[in-house]
Amino acid sequence: MVETSNAIIARIDSLAKERKIILRAILVGSAARNTWLSQDHDLDIFLGVTPDGDLAAALEVARLVAVDYEEKYAEHPYVHAWVDGFDVDLVPCYLVEDASSLKSAVDRTPFHTRYVSRWIAGREDDVLLLKQFMKGIDVYGSELKVGGFSGYLAELLVLHYGSFNGVLQAASAWRPGTRIDLEGKGKKAHDEPLIVVDPVDPNRNVAAALTMDKMLQFVAVSHAFLKEPSSDFFFPMNLLPLSDEEIVAQINVRGTKLILVEFPAPGVVEDILYPQLRKAEESIKALLERNGFLLLRSDVSTYRDRAVMLFEMEVWELSKASRRIGPPVWEAEHIARFLEAHPLPLSGPYIAKGKVVVEELREYTQARDLLAAEIENLSLGKHILPAIRGGYKICVGREMLDIRDDGFRVFLAHYFQARAPLRLTTACCSSSLSGRS
Amino acid sequence: MVETSNAIIARIDSLAKERKIILRAILVGSAARNTWLSQDHDLDIFLGVTPDGDLAAALEVARLVAVDYEEKYAEHPYVHAWVDGFDVDLVPCYLVEDASSLKSAVDRTPFHTRYVSRWIAGREDDVLLLKQFMKGIDVYGSELKVGGFSGYLAELLVLHYGSFNGVLQAASAWRPGTRIDLEGKGKKAHDEPLIVVDPVDPNRNVAAALTMDKMLQFVAVSHAFLKEPSSDFFFPMNLLPLSDEEIVAQINVRGTKLILVEFPAPGVVEDILYPQLRKAEESIKALLERNGFLLLRSDVSTYRDRAVMLFEMEVWELSKASRRIGPPVWEAEHIARFLEAHPLPLSGPYIAKGKVVVEELREYTQARDLLAAEIENLSLGKHILPAIRGGYKICVGREMLDIRDDGFRVFLAHYFQARAPLRLTTACCSSSLSGRS
Repeated sequence: MVETSNAIIARIDSLAKERKIILRAILVGSAARNTWLSQDHDLDIFLGVTPDGDLAAALEVARLVAVDYEEKYAEHPYVHAWVDGFDVDLVPCYLVEDASSLKSAVDRTPFHTRYVSRWIAGREDDVLLLKQFMKGIDVYGSELKVGGFSGYLAELLVLHYGSFNGVLQAASAWRPGTRIDLEGKGKKAHDEPLIVVDPVDPNRNVAAALTMDKMLQFVAVSHAFLKEPSSDFFFPMNLLPLSDEEIVAQINVRGTKLILVEFPAPGVVEDILYPQLRKAEESIKALLERNGFLLLRSDVSTYRDRAVMLFEMEVWELSKASRRIGPPVWEAEHIARFLEAHPLPLSGPYIAKGKVVVEELREYTQARDLLAAEIENLSLGKHILPAIRGGYKICVGREMLDIRDDGFRVFLAHYFQARAPLRLTTACCSSSLSGRS
Repeated sequence: MVETSNAIIARIDSLAKERKIILRAILVGSAARNTWLSQDHDLDIFLGVTPDGDLAAALEVARLVAVDYEEKYAEHPYVHAWVDGFDVDLVPCYLVEDASSLKSAVDRTPFHTRYVSRWIAGREDDVLLLKQFMKGIDVYGSELKVGGFSGYLAELLVLHYGSFNGVLQAASAWRPGTRIDLEGKGKKAHDEPLIVVDPVDPNRNVAAALTMDKMLQFVAVSHAFLKEPSSDFFFPMNLLPLSDEEIVAQINVRGTKLILVEFPAPGVVEDILYPQLRKAEESIKALLERNGFLLLRSDVSTYRDRAVMLFEMEVWELSKASRRIGPPVWEAEHIARFLEAHPLPLSGPYIAKGKVVVEELREYTQARDLLAAEIENLSLGKHILPAIRGGYKICVGREMLDIRDDGFRVFLAHYFQARAPLRLTTACCSSSLSGRS
């Protein structure tokens, strides 16, 4: 890893010199702080230009570092390259004097690296343990798809609480609204469930991307681990793609109606795609529940170039007859209009609980039909709606078997298991989906 | 009618004389006040004894009035006889000096007769109209089965508002909590929806048995009648028993699941039976809804010697998998106990909305199975429970066709129509169940 990053930095330096660009290549992230996990193959190298410099020129250099690369886009464009088996992010940034004069969000990263490097000596192993623990219990990663802890956040927690154990002990007692301020400089109020004031930028909450569920999962599992420690927390079994038989067995034992919406994934990065997928998921849930159907659970995922939203129904069929509740008895004008709007009720009008009621036919008695009829009218998110309009498929129950992709079937395995290791010993043996690593 | 009642009274007098019992036969009720409806064939004759007299002796006399009779029981025993095509209630009572020294509820009746007779002259037709109107819109009758207006209450309303039209105009603006006090003597607070202070017993609410729904039905229909009067309000079409084809058509068009509980009606009067049937109906509704099933509507009825409770389901089937919500994340002790109680969940444990959740199998996925398993454990009412235990049947959907009784099939016709004449013109033509009178 050191050799690879040194070689890349040397290549950037020489490319810049050739082009007469003032540019400094900096290794940032966990590799720079000796806090990277052995299975990690990520390198983050920033291409810093002066505040009046040219990011485009830096990007041009980044494109020449490796043959094998693609261009990506976050706040600015950057290059994702493959070098010697490593995933290398080559990110143009401005080198500002101090964190208060940032020109772009990525400019902050070198300050993070500097802050952590200054204090982390002797506690690198605690950081590694904590990161691996978070990975094992599925709360690691601040990308919006996960909504968990970033590496920098894990490092700050170790700095603050002194050790891996110290972090877990403190976290077991966290409540939503917990606030941590290492330098005591934070003034701004935040309403996220966990607030960790950024030591290099006191207005920023390092834990802003952490969701309530992931935070509380960390709380509960920290408690479980301290009570009964086990290496299984760090290395949970990997789940394999489900076979046709396993999917059918799950469908049968659960006795729910699984409704899957499958469509081409819009070509945007996950941090843009996932919030939109979650938004579309919420819109569809609201549609179903507003119409009387009941959800057990739902989830979204992507695999290769496809996106899926899965809705598991506790109630998927309703009677044709339904009640339409009208105005109170004493609102004569409203009643007249209500009765005009429902001239041929199935039953009624009658009075119930002080209101005029009619019974009439429901438009959709099946959740699937309602979804198919209304999905394109929902608020789905900027990139999702055109993707859906471009062509989607609704699969119900066994119709999912047509999707043979391993990524999809691993998603299903996780969905059906849905297990946080709160009591691993029992949990491990109980499932028909026991993992095979 | 006059001849029949005179003949009966003469027979009572002579029977009493033979037995040397001091006893006065009194015609009470609408027949005594010239406010009886032409289709009524009811006579109420009270057998009054002095306050220190013997009700049992009066009952003995009542038993000898007609060959064709049965004994019934309200607060005290009485005789229901059939004479010349009339239904005659022969009710022993005490003749007390004034209404404040009643010995039994029935002793009040002669005072009512006296009060109304004194003031009603010239307004008998208004009373007749009002009673027939109430009958036509199904709010007449203070028996608990109906929960409507008593004849005495209708008379008092005419006395208070002056005329049939006066009553309807006032009633159109009634709100729950409306209070009427003809003599201005009422002091006691009542919490029924309509309060009409009894002029002969100021602590009593004459409208105590009127339910909110029947009161508001009267309000709404009074308004509709005044806007567009029609004789149809007084004489709605009678509904005929439904044929097999009509029942099947209803089942199909409604697309609900109709669950019928059928059992021998306990041998008690309707005023005891109906409150218990309503209680049992509520208990069963609560059971179904507590377990996630959804009701469209329900009703109870009796025919011949049978009782039925009908539950019409909007949701009658649920998934096998269901969520079990556990304690909040920070209640470590409770979580441990929760997880012990659910050692082999289908999915989970996972964290959702700050709580530990597991998914496990539901015991009953069909409303019918739940009902069959739990009905005998419910709070059904004193006489209903033994009747159910003695043998009941659950019929779902077309299984109801096995019940050939006309009374049951008229009940079904009313149930499916469920129509208050809020706008009769339209309502009449809209139903596949249009009545044939």
